[in-house]
Amino acid sequence: MQLPHNVTIKEVGPRDGLQNEKEMIPTEDKIEWINHLSKTGLSYIEISSFVHPKWIPQLGDALEVAKGIKRNPEVTYATLVPNLKGLERALEADVDEVSIFMSASESHNKKNINKSIDETFPVLQEVVEGAKAENKSVRGYISTVFGCPYDGQVPIENVQKVCDQLFSMGIDELSIGDTIGVANPLQVQHVLETLSKDFPKDQLALHFHNTRGTALANVLTSLQLGFTTFDSALGGLGGCPYAKGASGNLATDDLLYMLKEMNIKTGINQDKLMQAGAFIQKKMDKPLPSHHMQIAYRGGDVT
Amino acid sequence: MQLPHNVTIKEVGPRDGLQNEKEMIPTEDKIEWINHLSKTGLSYIEISSFVHPKWIPQLGDALEVAKGIKRNPEVTYATLVPNLKGLERALEADVDEVSIFMSASESHNKKNINKSIDETFPVLQEVVEGAKAENKSVRGYISTVFGCPYDGQVPIENVQKVCDQLFSMGIDELSIGDTIGVANPLQVQHVLETLSKDFPKDQLALHFHNTRGTALANVLTSLQLGFTTFDSALGGLGGCPYAKGASGNLATDDLLYMLKEMNIKTGINQDKLMQAGAFIQKKMDKPLPSHHMQIAYRGGDVT
Repeated sequence: MQLPHNVTIKEVGPRDGLQNEKEMIPTEDKIEWINHLSKTGLSYIEISSFVHPKWIPQLGDALEVAKGIKRNPEVTYATLVPNLKGLERALEADVDEVSIFMSASESHNKKNINKSIDETFPVLQEVVEGAKAENKSVRGYISTVFGCPYDGQVPIENVQKVCDQLFSMGIDELSIGDTIGVANPLQVQHVLETLSKDFPKDQLALHFHNTRGTALANVLTSLQLGFTTFDSALGGLGGCPYAKGASGNLATDDLLYMLKEMNIKTGINQDKLMQAGAFIQKKMDKPLPSHHMQIAYRGGDVT
Repeated sequence: MQLPHNVTIKEVGPRDGLQNEKEMIPTEDKIEWINHLSKTGLSYIEISSFVHPKWIPQLGDALEVAKGIKRNPEVTYATLVPNLKGLERALEADVDEVSIFMSASESHNKKNINKSIDETFPVLQEVVEGAKAENKSVRGYISTVFGCPYDGQVPIENVQKVCDQLFSMGIDELSIGDTIGVANPLQVQHVLETLSKDFPKDQLALHFHNTRGTALANVLTSLQLGFTTFDSALGGLGGCPYAKGASGNLATDDLLYMLKEMNIKTGINQDKLMQAGAFIQKKMDKPLPSHHMQIAYRGGDVT
């Protein structure tokens, strides 16, 4: 089995995790949690979103969080940004990187962004230009690559078109999202082999959700194809908006376990990561859904 | 990706699932559940265990269950059997196959069977001979292949020795168990490549637990190596005795999803399987832990 020696895990829990939890976590707890995460060896943390609080009230304190955390110079801190207004606030917050996002499927893009796919491109183009002018790197997210909750299967040509447009804008990395957790390894192989013909592998990240339990199998396939960047949320924080209470993001702790056991280096300290998990679990006041947090919660051995 | 076209799923929920649940399910409910399972397209169901009820009171009604179910001639019905006394009862129950079991690690074998590994062989030998004399097929289980809760890592030579002894007795199939759910894909590859040098691939089954979330990734690796028989328990029934409440058996419904999506045939009807899951979930009076049962429980789309 051909596997990479090193993998980068991008922690999206403070954003993609918390935005899907109904509990409102106090700003100071978010700050303390991100400070914990900053000491685990993680090199990348997406700390919040500048989407209007009307849509995501859980992250309405993005500016306070960004200003309140203690920055570790080894860590890249990023926020989601939907438009120029969001970019202004992200620049005020002085994050290292901004993330733009859209879907590969029309219906999801419309529901999520309230624009057609073609209407979305110029809005994001402005954000990328504005961010680049301020020397910020830009990450793109493409959602519903492996399936859409409204449109079902998404033709690979639609995915390619959006990827092409986003890379043409000058983004530094693109995160390929299985938004509703339907992907299977064979499909992952097909999609990644197709995309890596046109786009550089080292600028593509994978963002799997574990809704149907297949996320780590999909990671394995990606690793075997030479992909080395994965998004995940500590504790599997954040559910699935299409089946409340079901698993959401691939859990950082479960991902780390599998990588570590296969001798793949991430730079992350498992003990410190589990401590950061225990911290937010206590603040959430409920057991987090990941396998490792469940074992730890019950006094089992996570190693 | 090289994948097999067909896979056999062996349903162990009525045995390995229920023996690890503290709830006592009434005999008539077990019978009704197995009758449901018999109509899903499953070709193999392990219905109970003739281990002494002192050790596993949850399965103390094995004989009543075996006599009470409506046999589908397309299904092989099996029970666990620890010794000649157990075999007698299994023969009285007229099951199609009996399963013998032991561990690859001394400490787990001792705790589980109260005998050393070397003391266990002659006991199992008698069972195999007795079963063969009555024209019953025999399945072996080898536990703790990928790690032991007491001894930690288990040398592959110890695994090979037990496999060799069990096959020498004349068993028809051997199920390779990750009893505590610690296996990772790289280790699975190493173990399976080593074992398939000495033993026929089509007589080896894989029995993964999903305690750390890696079961489907381990299945994927096994599939890529050409293994085609997997044990699982509907709904992920049965926890982990070493971390109460943590995930246990790989869930049949989650396994079926991944296989189906990769166009691998199992003969199992997903709708009927989910209905059989809903039945036992209702009897257990709690949501079952598998991803698909969780989604179904919350009204989401499992396909």
